[in-house]
Amino acid sequence: MVQLTGDERIDYLLAEENIRIIQSPTVFAFSLDAVLLAKFTHVPRTRGKILDLCTGNGVIPLFLSTRSRVPITGVELQERLYDMAVRNVELNQLEDRLEMIQGDLKEMPKRLGHGKYDLVTCNPPYFPTPQSEELNINEHLAIARHEIHCSLEEVVHSCSRLVKPGGKVSMVHRPGRMIDILTLFRKYRLEPKRLQLVYPKPGREANILLIEAARDGKPDLKILPPLYAFTENDEYSDDLKEILYGS
Amino acid sequence: MVQLTGDERIDYLLAEENIRIIQSPTVFAFSLDAVLLAKFTHVPRTRGKILDLCTGNGVIPLFLSTRSRVPITGVELQERLYDMAVRNVELNQLEDRLEMIQGDLKEMPKRLGHGKYDLVTCNPPYFPTPQSEELNINEHLAIARHEIHCSLEEVVHSCSRLVKPGGKVSMVHRPGRMIDILTLFRKYRLEPKRLQLVYPKPGREANILLIEAARDGKPDLKILPPLYAFTENDEYSDDLKEILYGS
Repeated sequence: MVQLTGDERIDYLLAEENIRIIQSPTVFAFSLDAVLLAKFTHVPRTRGKILDLCTGNGVIPLFLSTRSRVPITGVELQERLYDMAVRNVELNQLEDRLEMIQGDLKEMPKRLGHGKYDLVTCNPPYFPTPQSEELNINEHLAIARHEIHCSLEEVVHSCSRLVKPGGKVSMVHRPGRMIDILTLFRKYRLEPKRLQLVYPKPGREANILLIEAARDGKPDLKILPPLYAFTENDEYSDDLKEILYGS
Repeated sequence: MVQLTGDERIDYLLAEENIRIIQSPTVFAFSLDAVLLAKFTHVPRTRGKILDLCTGNGVIPLFLSTRSRVPITGVELQERLYDMAVRNVELNQLEDRLEMIQGDLKEMPKRLGHGKYDLVTCNPPYFPTPQSEELNINEHLAIARHEIHCSLEEVVHSCSRLVKPGGKVSMVHRPGRMIDILTLFRKYRLEPKRLQLVYPKPGREANILLIEAARDGKPDLKILPPLYAFTENDEYSDDLKEILYGS
């Protein structure tokens, strides 16, 4: 039995019938972004190692554990979220394959070694740090959403140092930061290879960006077919139903 | 009466009933790329000046003349294509608004002045210069398709010098070069503001990239809804019918 704290609750991980997840509306609940990233990324299935930075309650490692048999490590800075992530591993009896680490991603190359991972995933904070009076008053959400403890450049630099030559880095972000992301990826020798845009519905601007790069890869970007979250009638799209319910 | 040379023919400019265009299958025939760029770009409608680099037979200035009343200048390196462009202006009696210049785009900032244009459009050669034995044996097509006389960096640099501060630069290219384009645009202070991807049909990878940047603009990229050229049944999509036939 795992302990639940405050308003935490246990949810099922959507299409993955056997995976359950502890989350909390006021502290951290996983988003569509994490689901999309976990479906989008290539994964090493039977050999290698995966690292997930900014793992939050561990949602991406939980998802990836259904697609791969390799060891997955999650890194989370915040004690409160790290604690949820550890309990999520226990709740799903995945201790043999999933490990959670509390710490700053900028310290991880020193702590975990350079160039050791076949895949590094990251759903980083999206927004440049605003003036303090505008910050989300909930500290956990603020840290998860804003670049308070790590800038986008620090995230990309850490990914680049942690991934193997030829290994993959997959990230989800907002289209408004696309130029920054692509520029920083190149700066740190992560060559973008696959890009997918998610649109809330037909006729609207994209609001989610998925990108996968190869360390020291050759330039050759593929832009995948777009995904739509909802139909024109505001129903879940077939794309999203497939992702959420597996049908 | 305009003179036609060799296999040149006069076509109607699709949705634009009043515009006719001289083209030649063996020398230069305008492509969907030019049509899409002319529809995609913002245009100054009543004040300002427009410049089109790599204008070929002048197809983009002809299209833009239906959307704007401002003077439009086209620049073409190749004598043979420049000559077609001049005759296209005469054929449509647009001498009062359209001017064609023969010359190298790299010389244009000196010749036309720095920062004079409200909009610079360009449908540049797409492919890095291959080994000479692989080059298209038709010299006109080879120059139009490959970066023989100008690299992508030279094109972007020229656009940047020719456009006004705050003015727009619009370009059509291939998605495989997207990272190069975005990186070079930033390098030359052209901040990408609008991006649209064109897919041949649903479920396929994008094959055309449309991008518009603002000189010295603030970072804030919008990714527009995707366009599809054909339906799953290989018929023209509604998007394309609207663009080609205006209905």
